Amino acid sequence: MDSGVIYMSVLPTEKDFIRVFSNVFRLKNKPLLSGSEFDDCAALRLDSFSQNLFADSLTFSTDTVRESTDFPAGMTLWQRGWMTAAVNLSDLAAMGSKPVAFLFSAGLPRGFTLKDAEEFAQGIQDCVSFFGGEVIGGDTEFNEEFTITGTVIGISDNKNLILRKNAQPGDLLCVTGFTGSAGVALSVMLNKIRVPASNRFLKNIIEPFPRIFEGMMLAQSGAVNSMIDTSDGLASSVYELSALSGVFFEIDERSLPLEDEALSILSTSLKNELNGEQIGAKAQSLLVHEALYTGGDYELLFTIPQDKLSLVEELFQTLNTTAAMRFGSLSSAGKSGRSPCKFTVIGKAIAEKENVIITQSGSGEQRLPLLKMGYDSFTKYI
Amino acid sequence: MDSGVIYMSVLPTEKDFIRVFSNVFRLKNKPLLSGSEFDDCAALRLDSFSQNLFADSLTFSTDTVRESTDFPAGMTLWQRGWMTAAVNLSDLAAMGSKPVAFLFSAGLPRGFTLKDAEEFAQGIQDCVSFFGGEVIGGDTEFNEEFTITGTVIGISDNKNLILRKNAQPGDLLCVTGFTGSAGVALSVMLNKIRVPASNRFLKNIIEPFPRIFEGMMLAQSGAVNSMIDTSDGLASSVYELSALSGVFFEIDERSLPLEDEALSILSTSLKNELNGEQIGAKAQSLLVHEALYTGGDYELLFTIPQDKLSLVEELFQTLNTTAAMRFGSLSSAGKSGRSPCKFTVIGKAIAEKENVIITQSGSGEQRLPLLKMGYDSFTKYI
Repeated sequence: MDSGVIYMSVLPTEKDFIRVFSNVFRLKNKPLLSGSEFDDCAALRLDSFSQNLFADSLTFSTDTVRESTDFPAGMTLWQRGWMTAAVNLSDLAAMGSKPVAFLFSAGLPRGFTLKDAEEFAQGIQDCVSFFGGEVIGGDTEFNEEFTITGTVIGISDNKNLILRKNAQPGDLLCVTGFTGSAGVALSVMLNKIRVPASNRFLKNIIEPFPRIFEGMMLAQSGAVNSMIDTSDGLASSVYELSALSGVFFEIDERSLPLEDEALSILSTSLKNELNGEQIGAKAQSLLVHEALYTGGDYELLFTIPQDKLSLVEELFQTLNTTAAMRFGSLSSAGKSGRSPCKFTVIGKAIAEKENVIITQSGSGEQRLPLLKMGYDSFTKYI
Repeated sequence: MDSGVIYMSVLPTEKDFIRVFSNVFRLKNKPLLSGSEFDDCAALRLDSFSQNLFADSLTFSTDTVRESTDFPAGMTLWQRGWMTAAVNLSDLAAMGSKPVAFLFSAGLPRGFTLKDAEEFAQGIQDCVSFFGGEVIGGDTEFNEEFTITGTVIGISDNKNLILRKNAQPGDLLCVTGFTGSAGVALSVMLNKIRVPASNRFLKNIIEPFPRIFEGMMLAQSGAVNSMIDTSDGLASSVYELSALSGVFFEIDERSLPLEDEALSILSTSLKNELNGEQIGAKAQSLLVHEALYTGGDYELLFTIPQDKLSLVEELFQTLNTTAAMRFGSLSSAGKSGRSPCKFTVIGKAIAEKENVIITQSGSGEQRLPLLKMGYDSFTKYI
């Protein structure tokens, strides 16, 4: 038995870490009765929710990120904090829900200092507060691997909650932002592609920007029939909407929103293997593959009836005119390179009995089955 | 780049695991709009809370358990599930809060089968539902180490939320159940003590029984000034109450509720070293050490004004007459060896300026400083 054997230590204790966290997450919000710095639980007053018109349901999601699978080498601790919050918020975005509160349980590795804890906590705080939520609790313990599980709590108007299962025949299939950029950025960060990339571009993967404002706007518009995020890849998300809604989709690969810098990085990486004309086609094809089958983009995939297209276009225009103002409130660490979010119609719900990808083939086009493939941490089949 | 290289696999996918989980957590609760099997978030209707008279605040807590630190060898998967839920529920118990919902993020190791997932999920389900909550969401991913973070959501009547900071001078210091048993049980499981122990006794450590009903009863009684759980050890919890309330405590070690089997295990383990008379005293002293400085007991430590003692005694009697009925609803896996929970007055808030332990010394007694020592995953100072 260890009884009586006391190991003295100058390492920070759990309480030291919690003190640092609490200092970063200074609580300003009236509904909070008691932060979990001082008690076993954090508490929120229910009437703070019911006073909010945009709220008759609570939404919850939880997700884990960790060193070996989610933090490419070179990510700062602030960025790890931001990502921890962002991947959880992205699930709220996909329901069109408004963030209220965030809790996390952090496994911190050997040598983690109180200053490290402060920088990491600041990343969480900056992301959660930018999107309108409050960090209400954190638990921490030692772990050989840096591992953090976040839990996010949101509010929604029940009738406007957007589920995956309500896609309708004839719906247009739309996606926010760019597709495939995260996959290319990851390849650069992992040195699979030895081509320089701008910091702005790499942010796609290391500082994912959850589409909270776009999700809330789409939920309130009443125009959207179904929605999901693309964190496990676009094809995987299409299959989810399809399975739950009982409709199938065609995607036109020529309409996928591909980012110029992603194409240019892939083109540069092909220079030693191919000649000029081949390079462009191959880069395009590689990027389409990333767009469809690689995770990490954290965009919203949603379906709308055709007659709602102009309404949604107007809403995005309005949202984006206020975007610059919103980005101005980001801390300097989070600000650089953020740009307004567009959306693109990439396909539609069809009468066929499988999900289809339309590709350019010579002068004509080809309809091929969309592969059921994407990110899965168990099988890693891509 | 890996593009185009596809590794086919017959391993279960994330979606396979989620399907198994969802099947175990069949949702019966009306407030639930959408389980996270099918959507990015789980949703609960707010009016389901406000219809509950015992509720004007929500409480939240999150905690991680994992293979190398929390699951002694030999624990079944059902027990791992039970423990995951129980350690989270214990935080609600310490606030006197009623469990409503539970979410978890599970990192599952190589070789984990769908049948394993089912047994593990059943342990979570049995614990959460026994204490009145509902499992509303689960996320899963691969992890080298079996690691699960739970998040529990409860409801409380705002005015009855019991915090750590309100202990008053003169308050009696009370604890539920037995103290030190978990430390001894752990030593048996880790083979630090090679003495047989009953299954019932080992349950203290592998199937912790959160004091939810006792916590709710105490919250509603209006008799309790402050409360905390003892998961990091009794002394550590006393120091928390003390620091936040600005009062100090004395504990009389002779009043600590020690379990006969724990004493007997320690006595047997000392047989080869000591003679008869010495054994009893040494076993007692070792068990007191476990009670004060070792974590894992998951009891409630609370303070009450002296004139509320008889009220609290009556309430515990009432609660315990219905306990047998409640235990009857436990699944067979969780039922055996559960017994009603008593509570014990172990000390009181004092005018001195330090926390004190009173020990028997020959024919008199000794007042010694209580050590500020307990479980801390970072420093492991016990």
